Amino acid sequence: LTASLPRDATAADLASRLLAGDRLALARMISAVEAGRPDAREQLRCLFARTGRAHVVGVTGPPGSGKSTLTTRLALEYRARGQSVGIVAVDPTSPYSGGAILGDRVRMMELHSDPGVFMRSMATRGVMGGLARSTLDVVLLLDAFGKDVVMIETVGVGQDEVEIARAAHTTIVVGVPNLGDDIQAIKAGILEIADVLVVNKADLAGADRLVSDLRVMLQLGSAPLAGWAPPIVETVATEGVGVAELVERLAQHRVWLESSGAWHTRRAESARRQVQAIVEDRVQRRLERLTLGAEWQARFASIAAREQDPYSVAEDVLDAVTQHGQ
Amino acid sequence: LTASLPRDATAADLASRLLAGDRLALARMISAVEAGRPDAREQLRCLFARTGRAHVVGVTGPPGSGKSTLTTRLALEYRARGQSVGIVAVDPTSPYSGGAILGDRVRMMELHSDPGVFMRSMATRGVMGGLARSTLDVVLLLDAFGKDVVMIETVGVGQDEVEIARAAHTTIVVGVPNLGDDIQAIKAGILEIADVLVVNKADLAGADRLVSDLRVMLQLGSAPLAGWAPPIVETVATEGVGVAELVERLAQHRVWLESSGAWHTRRAESARRQVQAIVEDRVQRRLERLTLGAEWQARFASIAAREQDPYSVAEDVLDAVTQHGQ
Repeated sequence: LTASLPRDATAADLASRLLAGDRLALARMISAVEAGRPDAREQLRCLFARTGRAHVVGVTGPPGSGKSTLTTRLALEYRARGQSVGIVAVDPTSPYSGGAILGDRVRMMELHSDPGVFMRSMATRGVMGGLARSTLDVVLLLDAFGKDVVMIETVGVGQDEVEIARAAHTTIVVGVPNLGDDIQAIKAGILEIADVLVVNKADLAGADRLVSDLRVMLQLGSAPLAGWAPPIVETVATEGVGVAELVERLAQHRVWLESSGAWHTRRAESARRQVQAIVEDRVQRRLERLTLGAEWQARFASIAAREQDPYSVAEDVLDAVTQHGQ
Repeated sequence: LTASLPRDATAADLASRLLAGDRLALARMISAVEAGRPDAREQLRCLFARTGRAHVVGVTGPPGSGKSTLTTRLALEYRARGQSVGIVAVDPTSPYSGGAILGDRVRMMELHSDPGVFMRSMATRGVMGGLARSTLDVVLLLDAFGKDVVMIETVGVGQDEVEIARAAHTTIVVGVPNLGDDIQAIKAGILEIADVLVVNKADLAGADRLVSDLRVMLQLGSAPLAGWAPPIVETVATEGVGVAELVERLAQHRVWLESSGAWHTRRAESARRQVQAIVEDRVQRRLERLTLGAEWQARFASIAAREQDPYSVAEDVLDAVTQHGQ
């Protein structure tokens, strides 16, 4: 099937082959959507009706917490249970986008050669904006492709990353003992987005302490959602310890989402976030195009010279962006 | 002076007292600007003409690299040289916003009681968007207040953080040996924004290795700007080692910026970024307001039910946002 996919396949061809299970068509469609090809966007609109089945799981936590290893192990566990898996890594420190320790690489190669798994790394730098929009588009394509579980791995620092994590049905926040700043990072607000907490590297000395600290924080935090108190799962991802329990917890969370009605509420909320991401992306692209023009460049130079102020220029830019559409 | 500042002081009062050196007026003005008080925004516009003198230094690097300790030590070194200092911490893991090890706390208290230093932590969570805009506003207020040096501390992960770091005149990227993911994070694009590289905790075993790795990466990277090759400075921030050399390097960078004409180019570029941040913030706030309405909520629910698609709804939202302005 794949061998016969022509180079100049239309987006409509790609979309129908994607629905028929062609991995190469999926990969090309992702690239076409990311590149903003209008015909691909049109197809994405049609594919949307075919989505909504996958369990979207966010995995977030600071660099060094072992998110990628955990994500890999989760994927292997899901595969062992006969589920197909998509992985979207939105993490500049992710080994998916570069180096990893040898053991991880071997396991990742296992995943790479498994047709039941599809991985994609998102570029998090260079392009201003658009990350949230692109990530959510890729999640939808993996969902339409028929993946049972789609995992989004993000660094839990930065607004875009938190936004992306919030778009998941179930969000895992990963911490590790003795990272020093780690507990701070968790304190600073990320705890409230956790549906399941993981203490990874639970064989290290400080693990019990971290578990009890997290328990206290959960009690001090906002009241738990009716019927769901975020569990704390201890894992040693490098050894696969605790991963089966984690998969059980994720499944329980999905059951709770569906039985409580939260599944629909979360989908509506994530629709709102996605719409917002699309609109912001469009506005940012208009802005980029507009502000590269010579007229505006001259005004920025006059701000630099303190002849004008950025607030007044911003008002004019806002008028220009909202008037000359597209 | 401070004692006589009335609670209901107008933004114009705050602005004139700020220019006269009243710290409390500065703090209140920052809060008023962050809260989006229209009169405060109006005053910010006027204060802008009084800015442009401070050397704005970005300090960025992954959690655990010792950025906050380094920032504190830099501030003490600048103070010893008779320079006044502003610090803006945009870092959820920063001890300025919470816990820190005892030695750091003591040094920070030293800074807190020094009238030549003003510190502000930015909330990086909760509010959707607006972080870049608020941070740049606070930098301008500190500049107008007369600070010689304004340091912005950010976690070097996430688009907002990178954007903010780029708004500085001089950007320090901090790495530490043996952080594992650290070199990855640096590889993933942050190196290109570094004007000065710091290898902190240079007394650890892996420091020489990190220095030589960074040197190779700098050579492999894009061609250095004419006349400026980013130096690598080794520090042990907890002991203050290397901090004086770092301050020298920062001063050299400023001299280079001015003599090469890059100072003006960077200011124009940072004006562009600031204008863009203001516009995006305005659009986001319009979006938030708009999408909370019952009409749109019903449409998000219909997306959740797969009756509509987010791309079509986004077009309608875009039309609505750009038509009913402010």
